[in-house]
Amino acid sequence: MKALVYIGLKPGVLDPQGRAIARSLNDLGFDEVNNAFQGKVIELDLSSEDKTEAKAQVEKMCEKLLANTVIESYRIELRD
Amino acid sequence: MKALVYIGLKPGVLDPQGRAIARSLNDLGFDEVNNAFQGKVIELDLSSEDKTEAKAQVEKMCEKLLANTVIESYRIELRD
Repeated sequence: MKALVYIGLKPGVLDPQGRAIARSLNDLGFDEVNNAFQGKVIELDLSSEDKTEAKAQVEKMCEKLLANTVIESYRIELRD
Repeated sequence: MKALVYIGLKPGVLDPQGRAIARSLNDLGFDEVNNAFQGKVIELDLSSEDKTEAKAQVEKMCEKLLANTVIESYRIELRD
């Protein structure tokens, strides 16, 4: 089973990387870009069989290691 | 309109960050994790109206700035 974990900054947290991207795109002539935000995706290859259990485990992984829950939020997607 | 750009390493490219994640998760007792891959998501807030045109523009942004196409591949998703 595969788990996709999307991790992004919580709203209101300063995102200098996103601002740099938006600015660089504007400088390159892409004037339609108003704003940009950068996040992470982590793809996990799991040997679990049970979806509910896998999701609970991946949530634990996020809380313990993958996300900094003070400033980041995460979303989990499971795929067979 | 919003564009989501998913950027990941091409298959076969060494992913030390992914390996570090997998190893750390194993060390924390998550033995079900066989492998991990880390990628980026960039969310763009666009003032474009036309979907086809927006997609073509975002593709140009990827080629010019967002992705290193020698080692990375990208996938674009548009949302209203």
